[in-house]
Amino acid sequence: MTKENYTAEVLQYIAIFYIIWSDDLLSASEINVVENAIAEDSTLTQSDKKQLHKWLDVKNPPKNQVFKSWKQLITNSGVKLVENETYPLAAFSQKVASHYHNGLALNNHIKKIEVNLGIQPNHYNHLFDVHIDVDKNSAQYSAIEIDRILKGNHAEVVDNFRHVLKDPIFSWEIRRNKEEFRNHVLKQVEFLADKGYGAMAYSETYGGKNDMEGYATIFENMMFVDGSLAIKFGVQFGLFGGSIQKLGTKKHHDKYLVDTGSANLLGCFAMTETGHGSNVRGIKTTATYNHITETLVIHTPGKNDNKEYIGNALHSKMASVFAQLIVNGKNEGVHAILVPLRNEDHELLPGIEVEDNGYKLGLNGVDNGKIWFNQVSVPKENLLNKYGTILGDGDYYSEIKNPNKRFFTMLGTLVGGRICVARAGLGGAKYALTVAIKHALKRRQFNDSVKIQEDLLMDYPSYQLRLTPLVASAYVYHITLDKMMKVYCDESQPDKRQVETQVAGLKSIITWYANDTIQECREACGGKGYLLENRIADLKGDVDIFTTFEGDNNVLLQLAAKGVLSDFKAEFNSAGFSTVLKLLSSQISDKLSNINPLYINKTDKDHLYNPKFHVHALEHRTRRLTYTIAMRIRGYIKKGIPSYQAFLKVQTHLMTLGKAYSVELAYKSFIEHNSTIIDPHHKALFEKLGTLYALSEIRKDASWYLEQGYIGSSKSKAIRQRVERLCTEMRPQLDSLVDGFGIPDHCLTAPIAN
Amino acid sequence: MTKENYTAEVLQYIAIFYIIWSDDLLSASEINVVENAIAEDSTLTQSDKKQLHKWLDVKNPPKNQVFKSWKQLITNSGVKLVENETYPLAAFSQKVASHYHNGLALNNHIKKIEVNLGIQPNHYNHLFDVHIDVDKNSAQYSAIEIDRILKGNHAEVVDNFRHVLKDPIFSWEIRRNKEEFRNHVLKQVEFLADKGYGAMAYSETYGGKNDMEGYATIFENMMFVDGSLAIKFGVQFGLFGGSIQKLGTKKHHDKYLVDTGSANLLGCFAMTETGHGSNVRGIKTTATYNHITETLVIHTPGKNDNKEYIGNALHSKMASVFAQLIVNGKNEGVHAILVPLRNEDHELLPGIEVEDNGYKLGLNGVDNGKIWFNQVSVPKENLLNKYGTILGDGDYYSEIKNPNKRFFTMLGTLVGGRICVARAGLGGAKYALTVAIKHALKRRQFNDSVKIQEDLLMDYPSYQLRLTPLVASAYVYHITLDKMMKVYCDESQPDKRQVETQVAGLKSIITWYANDTIQECREACGGKGYLLENRIADLKGDVDIFTTFEGDNNVLLQLAAKGVLSDFKAEFNSAGFSTVLKLLSSQISDKLSNINPLYINKTDKDHLYNPKFHVHALEHRTRRLTYTIAMRIRGYIKKGIPSYQAFLKVQTHLMTLGKAYSVELAYKSFIEHNSTIIDPHHKALFEKLGTLYALSEIRKDASWYLEQGYIGSSKSKAIRQRVERLCTEMRPQLDSLVDGFGIPDHCLTAPIAN
Repeated sequence: MTKENYTAEVLQYIAIFYIIWSDDLLSASEINVVENAIAEDSTLTQSDKKQLHKWLDVKNPPKNQVFKSWKQLITNSGVKLVENETYPLAAFSQKVASHYHNGLALNNHIKKIEVNLGIQPNHYNHLFDVHIDVDKNSAQYSAIEIDRILKGNHAEVVDNFRHVLKDPIFSWEIRRNKEEFRNHVLKQVEFLADKGYGAMAYSETYGGKNDMEGYATIFENMMFVDGSLAIKFGVQFGLFGGSIQKLGTKKHHDKYLVDTGSANLLGCFAMTETGHGSNVRGIKTTATYNHITETLVIHTPGKNDNKEYIGNALHSKMASVFAQLIVNGKNEGVHAILVPLRNEDHELLPGIEVEDNGYKLGLNGVDNGKIWFNQVSVPKENLLNKYGTILGDGDYYSEIKNPNKRFFTMLGTLVGGRICVARAGLGGAKYALTVAIKHALKRRQFNDSVKIQEDLLMDYPSYQLRLTPLVASAYVYHITLDKMMKVYCDESQPDKRQVETQVAGLKSIITWYANDTIQECREACGGKGYLLENRIADLKGDVDIFTTFEGDNNVLLQLAAKGVLSDFKAEFNSAGFSTVLKLLSSQISDKLSNINPLYINKTDKDHLYNPKFHVHALEHRTRRLTYTIAMRIRGYIKKGIPSYQAFLKVQTHLMTLGKAYSVELAYKSFIEHNSTIIDPHHKALFEKLGTLYALSEIRKDASWYLEQGYIGSSKSKAIRQRVERLCTEMRPQLDSLVDGFGIPDHCLTAPIAN
Repeated sequence: MTKENYTAEVLQYIAIFYIIWSDDLLSASEINVVENAIAEDSTLTQSDKKQLHKWLDVKNPPKNQVFKSWKQLITNSGVKLVENETYPLAAFSQKVASHYHNGLALNNHIKKIEVNLGIQPNHYNHLFDVHIDVDKNSAQYSAIEIDRILKGNHAEVVDNFRHVLKDPIFSWEIRRNKEEFRNHVLKQVEFLADKGYGAMAYSETYGGKNDMEGYATIFENMMFVDGSLAIKFGVQFGLFGGSIQKLGTKKHHDKYLVDTGSANLLGCFAMTETGHGSNVRGIKTTATYNHITETLVIHTPGKNDNKEYIGNALHSKMASVFAQLIVNGKNEGVHAILVPLRNEDHELLPGIEVEDNGYKLGLNGVDNGKIWFNQVSVPKENLLNKYGTILGDGDYYSEIKNPNKRFFTMLGTLVGGRICVARAGLGGAKYALTVAIKHALKRRQFNDSVKIQEDLLMDYPSYQLRLTPLVASAYVYHITLDKMMKVYCDESQPDKRQVETQVAGLKSIITWYANDTIQECREACGGKGYLLENRIADLKGDVDIFTTFEGDNNVLLQLAAKGVLSDFKAEFNSAGFSTVLKLLSSQISDKLSNINPLYINKTDKDHLYNPKFHVHALEHRTRRLTYTIAMRIRGYIKKGIPSYQAFLKVQTHLMTLGKAYSVELAYKSFIEHNSTIIDPHHKALFEKLGTLYALSEIRKDASWYLEQGYIGSSKSKAIRQRVERLCTEMRPQLDSLVDGFGIPDHCLTAPIAN
């Protein structure tokens, strides 16, 4: 059967017939529509019409041989299906027929069938063995290369870890029952511990690799499996193990660290109390030293003084308990003590009570609970005594004499955890962006009334503006957090006050960014985003609490701001403000230069894309906010307002400063890193991402910049237009950019992303 | 036992002893602390010390009689416990002792005990039968009066309904298994139907009360029980029943409406398809008329053309199916047809396939499913034929000749549902605000270093700024939605195009507001907000999808903007822009007056609080945005860019206009209503709420107002300061304002709100 059997006019109908017969589309309505079209088609002869009608007879469908010959004709034509044609099927049909008979026009009746049946390319493109011309992505950039840049020095660790995640134990499914879910997550944690990941940040002596930076990267990758896995893993190895590692001494390391890293000793980190979350210094649990028995008595005094929200509380054998250490009737402040919770049979020890926190918005695979202690005695050796100890004569001793400084030195060990939480939030945001963008690169909705093919969601300017700046931010924050961990781990810089302050601010803006991003992605996926199977819903629930735990964002922002105000010389986390005030009074001076009127309304592209402009604007904002807060506080103090009240009065201003400083820091970290990218092609891409980030952030605070006279109306408008334009320009790179996040296919299970 | 038994000095210790003995606080550490204090207290004689030491002997605790006498002494003193004292317990002790012995000073050793043991008023205030002076709220306003204003004409309906919600069937519990949850929600729906609430919006003939406005108010109140209840109720009576009521004719009403309203006939509303959500006109399901059998054949042509996300799909006996109606081979556009899904034994009828959508982020008590139809025949009478019918001779007939207009007339019946969705979102926001504010009026965290009592969360300026404008918005949106439903139901105004456009915009901004509010409340409650028991978590999951269903917010905003552009003369929902363009070309003119330079920087309170300023600013924004969009589109058209492309280019601009118009509309509705409040006292409160709303909204768009030169720097800063100031000023009213939402105690089960 060849072209000789069909006239050119009949040939044009072949594709239609092939589709409606092969895809089981031939209902009464279809027959009606096709019959009408044929009847009205004056290009067809009577014999053509007879032939076509024959093929519409449901009782005598075309023989298989005929059917195959149609496909052969289509394939032999070598014609490509071009999805973004106005009438892709009519155009395709015309091109197929033209391959055999020259000079054929587009048949309006076929167009009509295409329109009336509403046959869209995604209904039939799988039927043809032809190349389909879908232009959803540019091949300009390599996702592999982008991923390589993001992995930096940790490529081997990350690649190995992603391979490990292939194990079926990590395959995602819906788990509604918290007990089953928790047990499964526990198995996953034990599996990773067996592979050596639990001890990763500990020293080689204790089975580890001394690789805290690598630990942070795999922590982020765990979010591609499940939020509960990441958090339970973090509680066991980072918080419980980390307290032993960082607050304990060699005797504790020797005794517990190997078992902790291998998950043979499950533990929890019992700091927060029902009555005291953010204000750790005010916790009520007491650890009273009895010198006769050489024991510490752990006790929960009041009804709201129980430990609250303690992760791993139901699976743990031991807790690292934070309590007011009382020695010789004197309160020496908060210390951590290792307290056994359960015996070998997993029964609670005397005096200990644990209550399940129950179901939560997310993270139901983590067993959070409340813990009460009723006069529980433990040997004095259980005091994690790196920063404060009880001597043989029963007296307390610490090298850090200032109790305030001692407290914050201990809390400083939490900073690594804050970086990890921010990274986990970022991992969640990357996952959600990947799902949403891959969906928007497939999903079509609405069209020009003359087109049969609907438009890709990702081609709508509103989608571009919603999602593209969020992608840019993911890149900026990835690089920033990587750098922060590096600085934090740098043993050559023992004074961590600056990095602690910086992490406080970054943890806040990045976990908020993560929540906003996941929310935007949920909405961008419409109802599909609401189904658990598409994974965004779980991320929403899991990441939500990241803004609260490991330090409430609003509190952390104020700490960050106080750090900036005191030029990082005050104690981190300090609730007392005297150091800040002292520094303020000596340092206040407005370093700001006047802004040139030409600069205020400079709107050319080179200027707006120039990192020098971005850095100048972001620095100006931080400096100016610092100066104005300092002036306000000084004014209050002069009026005799107590410093605590004065700081309360500027509380919202402080938070604004905390955010501004963090954004400046992130952008500067990113452009600093860009200078290390060798390939100029990808370097340019990263620079564009930086520009989009900086302009978006300046745009968010445009009202402030305008109020300050730093930018004029025309510049403000130009920035808005540039943000929109950049989003449109980056549309062809989006697919590579989300693939560049490197989420392994075995983790990307959302049906709408495939 | 009277005062004669104790010296003044000993008397001061009585309260402390009473607390540590009665509240089981007397651990080793407590004894230590108290002993040290006594030892150091030089005001005590040796005999005093001996007496006090005796009372610390754990082996020989004070006798019950002694213990009771202490309490008697405290009670007889008549002293009040003042919670906001710096040292509430030491001050209380001093006052009690002073009642019996004049001129006693505050005892520093007692202060020390208070500090070292960290005994806070919430630990002991329940022990005393004394009046506790807690000043968390002002009695200036009456919550009952506020609630009365909000209920308006619907007080009786609302009060009765709230009483009905006392039934144990509505008591809240955690339901993780979707099947059990769905069955329970079904029982709740049937229970309400039995009480007559299902038929409420139908006419008296069919068991109803013809009260759509009342229906909307009870719909909002259902959110206080559970989101799934509201949505399943809405699907059954509003969507399924509503389609029969509004798209059907008397024969359908007579046959189905009584059974629908009583929930004897469960039905679903099958409009959305997997491939077509927002673009309803493009749905693929066909209903082909066969004149020989006088039947309509319902068919799902392709694999993505199934009905998707259909609520009540698993419980329904019947579906109202939206399909392309094909009569005599001609597609007459989308129509609704009643299609039986299951028989009496709840087995699916031939040709029908239903699949559970599975678990979702929220609303797991609603049985959403996919539905496929394979050549399913139903009698032609099942066509809901109010706007288009099949005549006896087999021809199609409609009074609305324009297919576009016909389509949008049918869709217009959805508008009532959109108002209800917005109200339900608002109900969720009110609930979350009530929980968060009641929590913040109890929860304390941090303090001045000299104070033992920590500060109430609600006393932090950052909390005031986070929550107060959200409360104001709830009031504004409540009044606005009430008015919209009234206008929508007003039979004297048959042209609904304007209200349809307005509802499109309001549904968007209000459901977004609801999500933002619930999120802010979750964060404001910290970890407690994350627990399901505190109810905010479920609201987050349930309300999330409100931004998507009943019209995606982004799409609706564009419709609203097109309505504004065409002065509400274009067809609602129209994807064609010709009407808009026609109107644009005749109407474009910038009606804006020039702004007086004095006005631009007018910052006095009277001006900033004046509704005339607010209205002028909000109107200015809408007008200016309308004008600039019109100019941009005209420019594109002149360059030969097709109108579809031109509208794409201004898409984000359109959405900005849609929002701006909706805010203006809401504020104007609110102040119009304020003029009807009779009591001047509460009227002033409402006016303040309106001012806070208006200034907050202007503040959000301050960058635009600054760019336009509508406000200057100093005015912009003054507005920001006024917003913060108003939030602080309204702090004492917050408790009354959330009580004014009228959420019944039996629904407010969150432990942190009680």
